[in-house]
Amino acid sequence: MDITTRDDEKKTARVESFSDCVISIAITLLILNIKVPTIAETAGASLSARLLSSWPSFLAFAISFGMVLVMWVNHHRVLRLVRTTDYPFLYWNGFLLMTITFVPYPTALLAEHLRGPHAATAMAFYAATAVVVAVAYSALWRHLVRHPELLLKSADPCEVEAISQQYRFGPLMYLIAFGVAFVSVDVSIAICFILALYFGIAGCPRDPKCQT
Amino acid sequence: MDITTRDDEKKTARVESFSDCVISIAITLLILNIKVPTIAETAGASLSARLLSSWPSFLAFAISFGMVLVMWVNHHRVLRLVRTTDYPFLYWNGFLLMTITFVPYPTALLAEHLRGPHAATAMAFYAATAVVVAVAYSALWRHLVRHPELLLKSADPCEVEAISQQYRFGPLMYLIAFGVAFVSVDVSIAICFILALYFGIAGCPRDPKCQT
Amino acid sequence: MDITTRDDEKKTARVESFSDCVISIAITLLILNIKVPTIAETAGASLSARLLSSWPSFLAFAISFGMVLVMWVNHHRVLRLVRTTDYPFLYWNGFLLMTITFVPYPTALLAEHLRGPHAATAMAFYAATAVVVAVAYSALWRHLVRHPELLLKSADPCEVEAISQQYRFGPLMYLIAFGVAFVSVDVSIAICFILALYFGIAGCPRDPKCQT
Amino acid sequence: MDITTRDDEKKTARVESFSDCVISIAITLLILNIKVPTIAETAGASLSARLLSSWPSFLAFAISFGMVLVMWVNHHRVLRLVRTTDYPFLYWNGFLLMTITFVPYPTALLAEHLRGPHAATAMAFYAATAVVVAVAYSALWRHLVRHPELLLKSADPCEVEAISQQYRFGPLMYLIAFGVAFVSVDVSIAICFILALYFGIAGCPRDPKCQT
Repeated sequence: MDITTRDDEKKTARVESFSDCVISIAITLLILNIKVPTIAETAGASLSARLLSSWPSFLAFAISFGMVLVMWVNHHRVLRLVRTTDYPFLYWNGFLLMTITFVPYPTALLAEHLRGPHAATAMAFYAATAVVVAVAYSALWRHLVRHPELLLKSADPCEVEAISQQYRFGPLMYLIAFGVAFVSVDVSIAICFILALYFGIAGCPRDPKCQT
Repeated sequence: MDITTRDDEKKTARVESFSDCVISIAITLLILNIKVPTIAETAGASLSARLLSSWPSFLAFAISFGMVLVMWVNHHRVLRLVRTTDYPFLYWNGFLLMTITFVPYPTALLAEHLRGPHAATAMAFYAATAVVVAVAYSALWRHLVRHPELLLKSADPCEVEAISQQYRFGPLMYLIAFGVAFVSVDVSIAICFILALYFGIAGCPRDPKCQT
Repeated sequence: MDITTRDDEKKTARVESFSDCVISIAITLLILNIKVPTIAETAGASLSARLLSSWPSFLAFAISFGMVLVMWVNHHRVLRLVRTTDYPFLYWNGFLLMTITFVPYPTALLAEHLRGPHAATAMAFYAATAVVVAVAYSALWRHLVRHPELLLKSADPCEVEAISQQYRFGPLMYLIAFGVAFVSVDVSIAICFILALYFGIAGCPRDPKCQT
Repeated sequence: MDITTRDDEKKTARVESFSDCVISIAITLLILNIKVPTIAETAGASLSARLLSSWPSFLAFAISFGMVLVMWVNHHRVLRLVRTTDYPFLYWNGFLLMTITFVPYPTALLAEHLRGPHAATAMAFYAATAVVVAVAYSALWRHLVRHPELLLKSADPCEVEAISQQYRFGPLMYLIAFGVAFVSVDVSIAICFILALYFGIAGCPRDPKCQT
């Protein structure tokens, strides 16, 4: 009933539940690619050898799950600060969801071609996707910062500032990983891996205020 | 405890969460159609050329994602005004969800046949689907307008009026795009594209009241 | 803070959201079976004829969507009355969800074999599935009636009684449809169709109290 | 407004809805593996015999559904006690979701190879997956117990203690089932089955306090 309180009421339930559904599909997609070897296929052979030989599929599933999980945690981190939405926010969020849904594709491509002759192309495609995802986060966040009326009044200003700084340099770093892919696939992978770790724990509480 | 307040309590959580799940599946469906080229398939060939050649699949995914996103934003726009539901509303909403779930099919069909000899048929099929989707929105909205007790008392009357006008002419316009498909595929696409843009931003705030 | 009010607080958010997700996957499953005809497949042929010839797939999708929608509406109808859950409720609900997830399979089977030599078997399989679904609803509801502390105090007693009566005879009626399948497929379909319509509108408001 | 009350407000809506979506996809995944026999395939043969012969697929779907349902009930049981989340919790929960998403794969593998020459390998793979799932539950719970500020103040201490004891020995028991698989597949299955039943009903109310 207090007007100030009402103003700070969160109205993001639906955009959060829609995002959760879309991201959950992206995160489980790769498991559909792993086929169960049939009895006929393993006749006179070893099932364990067969299972071991499909480790790239298992690895691609685990990596893709981990990467999309980091993206979900970042989405959660941003939306925690949002009070209400406007049309541009819904579309920037939709664009971000589209890029996240696409992530399993380059991951599977990289798993398939990592040890083949097209490793550089696959890695560049992967890093290029990461650039687009980082740009989408950056654009979504910039819209919020430019329309502070969309943010909760209770949003911690130093948290807002921290996100602004972190998301600003994301696209650039992944762009470097993209360029490096044509020189050294291994270094490019290492850059992407370190960036994923960084964004995975960025905002992790160093002081009690930062709890999710 | 205040009766007026209780009367205005939203009771649409479940129909919204069910709709979010269904629409999120529709929006991600096309990504399942894009196959990762294997090492064997690209032996002695260029992976980048192979990836470039599957651009119609990527484009179909992006277009379909964008279109279903516009539909989700419109669903969100309508449901924001709804206080409670009755049986006919649940079934009109279900019919709408069915048509939205179907959208990726004609989109993929159009992407496949756009440059082939059956472009007119594919475009007509696409526009026909759009007619049915528009009719479903129109029917859902008409039910709400005829049963104003289902709407929130706080629903902005001018927003209600705006939706009524916009959804009334939607089916007719897509019907024109359907007819035009047999004359000129390009003009028919242009009409659909402009209509999607229109419905994507219709209701976008020109004054602060219209914020989502 | 009022103890009576707290007692009547709904604690079913999570079982509802989980059910919504599972049912939404069941309701969209059949669309995955409809393949887009490629340019190569339709070379020198008519795309519209090709699309028309796959009408059984489209019909199976629409029927399955409609049937699962009726089941969702019934799930919504029951859960509206539930205040809190216990372990048996969670498992009866899980069993119900499993039967609902299975529904698209017999629907697709019936669509494929309706005009073939195995129509009676396919119809019997379909009716048998419907029996199991009806038993699952019946069991879930019986558990609630035997543990009225799980129901909302504000639950309308005449609505509770109406559901009890309707769900009691459901399994029996579908069992009749199952037996009839071996005599006349058409009559068996008609029985199932009438029952689906009945459960689709049962509880539909004849007086204002019954609004969903 | 009361600070104590605010402190005990649940802030887990989003992690619950994301988990529900992911688990719901895992629980329905196996139904995608069951193919509808076409008219051509059953020409001159019996459809019922054909359906009966695919019982391992149906059984794998039912078992997998039941197992993931037990996992969902346990997830629900744990999250009921959680007040708020931190970054490590989100990642432990993500790791748990990844293992749950993987469960249908070893289930299908076991269904395929149970009567074949590779039964021991398939059973060991299945039990190994169960070990990892149990470890994930155990790790998630240990994090909560070590950070009691994440738990609701109203969380029943004896319920907390009960979960601690039950989840502690879970991984060990499944490890025994893993070892036994190489000696007797039947005994290993029996151990897994008894453990699933145990975790399915653990926490089931013996006194009214324990209601879910």
